[in-house]
Amino acid sequence: MITVLKIDGMTCGHCVAAVTKALEATPGVESADVVLADGRATVLHEGIVGALVAAVEDEGYEAREA
Amino acid sequence: MITVLKIDGMTCGHCVAAVTKALEATPGVESADVVLADGRATVLHEGIVGALVAAVEDEGYEAREA
Repeated sequence: MITVLKIDGMTCGHCVAAVTKALEATPGVESADVVLADGRATVLHEGIVGALVAAVEDEGYEAREA
Repeated sequence: MITVLKIDGMTCGHCVAAVTKALEATPGVESADVVLADGRATVLHEGIVGALVAAVEDEGYEAREA
């Protein structure tokens, strides 16, 4: 499935890299496309959305399903 | 010697980590203290200041001796 997350708090490319890495390390995630300017991540995954939100929040950002 | 650099463009803790790592990897640098809120780095080092500025600029930030 495809889930779009709204993510608050990303300020630079390092943040994008950290969020991308965290999402892609989450079990069930096939790919994650994170866009700084939009504050959004588009994630192709199996499994529950809550795991994605938790992965992003563990990096220190606010996240919710868009 | 101690050199203080003014650094523009750091936006988050990842930036601080990247600048710190770059400075501490520069030959002659003993330690680097980078403060996001001030946009400054205080560097204890031997060798030329230009090498410090170059290390920070290689990470994508503007730097100059303060």
